[in-house]
Amino acid sequence: MIVYFNGHFIPKEKVSISPDDRGFLFADGIYEVVRWYGSYFFGFSEHMDRLKRSLNEIHIELNEWPDFYSLALELVKENELEGRDAILYIQITRGVAKRNHGFPDPKVNPTVYACISEFQPSSEQKLIGIKTITLPDERWSRCDIKTVGLLPNILAKQAAIEKGAYEAILIRNGNITEAAHSNVFAVRDGLVITHPDSGFVLPGIVRKISLELCQKIGIPVELNPINSSEIEYMDEFFITNTSGEILAVTNLDGKSFRNGFPGEITRKLSDAFIQYRESRKS
Amino acid sequence: MIVYFNGHFIPKEKVSISPDDRGFLFADGIYEVVRWYGSYFFGFSEHMDRLKRSLNEIHIELNEWPDFYSLALELVKENELEGRDAILYIQITRGVAKRNHGFPDPKVNPTVYACISEFQPSSEQKLIGIKTITLPDERWSRCDIKTVGLLPNILAKQAAIEKGAYEAILIRNGNITEAAHSNVFAVRDGLVITHPDSGFVLPGIVRKISLELCQKIGIPVELNPINSSEIEYMDEFFITNTSGEILAVTNLDGKSFRNGFPGEITRKLSDAFIQYRESRKS
Repeated sequence: MIVYFNGHFIPKEKVSISPDDRGFLFADGIYEVVRWYGSYFFGFSEHMDRLKRSLNEIHIELNEWPDFYSLALELVKENELEGRDAILYIQITRGVAKRNHGFPDPKVNPTVYACISEFQPSSEQKLIGIKTITLPDERWSRCDIKTVGLLPNILAKQAAIEKGAYEAILIRNGNITEAAHSNVFAVRDGLVITHPDSGFVLPGIVRKISLELCQKIGIPVELNPINSSEIEYMDEFFITNTSGEILAVTNLDGKSFRNGFPGEITRKLSDAFIQYRESRKS
Repeated sequence: MIVYFNGHFIPKEKVSISPDDRGFLFADGIYEVVRWYGSYFFGFSEHMDRLKRSLNEIHIELNEWPDFYSLALELVKENELEGRDAILYIQITRGVAKRNHGFPDPKVNPTVYACISEFQPSSEQKLIGIKTITLPDERWSRCDIKTVGLLPNILAKQAAIEKGAYEAILIRNGNITEAAHSNVFAVRDGLVITHPDSGFVLPGIVRKISLELCQKIGIPVELNPINSSEIEYMDEFFITNTSGEILAVTNLDGKSFRNGFPGEITRKLSDAFIQYRESRKS
């Protein structure tokens, strides 16, 4: 596999991250994941806007801004991924410096790493939905920044896997925030509800587009936290993320949700998303 | 510098962390810092107990448990640190695997890295105390685990540095929890007060020993959160950590605390700590 590392396209085995890299020592870095649909990246500019915002929030400055779009296309070419589904991964850390909590002084060059891997989207998940569990949200209060500090997410995801589920829906102060690697939505009486933007949720790209599509196709939206006591009164649940797009929640904590089939609004929105995504082929 | 990496003693420049190391991708790892006082490590077994606990809490299993004490002494020898102050650093991550949030399946070998660096303790800080600022505690709710997911700590420490301070005292739900890389104590009417053990504080080794010493030398202790509204009624503040031991807080948010001198109880405890530490020379 050919990857990008600090200005060079090299085989992955040749990449050598320093043990003094602040990504390794401190989770002092951010990342993005972008889907490649065989012939186009979806939402590339939105992902780059979020990448810039993440860097800004934790005060990492790139001396030179690489042309990430050309870089991504080069990775597609080098790895012969034309016509195949893939996931682009970009990670930027504050760079390599003697271990000290404060930022390196003088500044050092950030580490920039990117790779692309073939990816098999699950048609089964699209059709029959996913199993989920609920867990306490143990993350920090700046989940709006897409940092590599993902240990709480990992522990939640692993707990889900061990219960035969795909995702863990996280509950903070009694309210659903999001899931281990997805945003969470509910539907009640035709109204789509999701947690408002805050430090407790990532501003997901598919989340944002889903909310715009709701408006476009006439589904009313409410940005409000869903209290866990209200779960049983909801008609549908679905999650959104870059790799899975929009997936219905059909099982919650070991019990079928509603009758175990994706709900009507979820299917309608998922169809609208696929249509919109195809319309943006560049 | 000679470091330890996955069973081998090698020059630091030869260490190559994979970009698929879960420490780099996810902060999926833990660490310990132990002080070397020229001829002995202080609290080595306590640090190892905490290391084991951290691994256990995030479900990392070492196939083979390295003899960390022999390893540490070997690093002292290789780096000619006999007779000099130094800091031992040990980091263990879940290992190298294709990027997936769930634990690698099948399991992979954890990455074990250790290094030792010369360290100049600050006699000025001991004498005149430290400057601190207060900041909201943005960390996750399992701060009792010593993980490498330190970005919130780093952002707090950097904010302190930019205000000319050494530490950031963190406030969660109105209460002082700890500082960016230290535990925090207050003294009021001769009583030493610190946050009780919980997911909001690290069980610091110097913290634990300080509490034991208080009992030994007849200083009463209260394990209770200090509300930020009570700060002005406290007689003394001090912090504890592995590198600085016990340091008086003499400046808080830009203002001298009390008259800007280390308090009596802080000095008494700090003396008792140094005496105790020397008594444990092995």
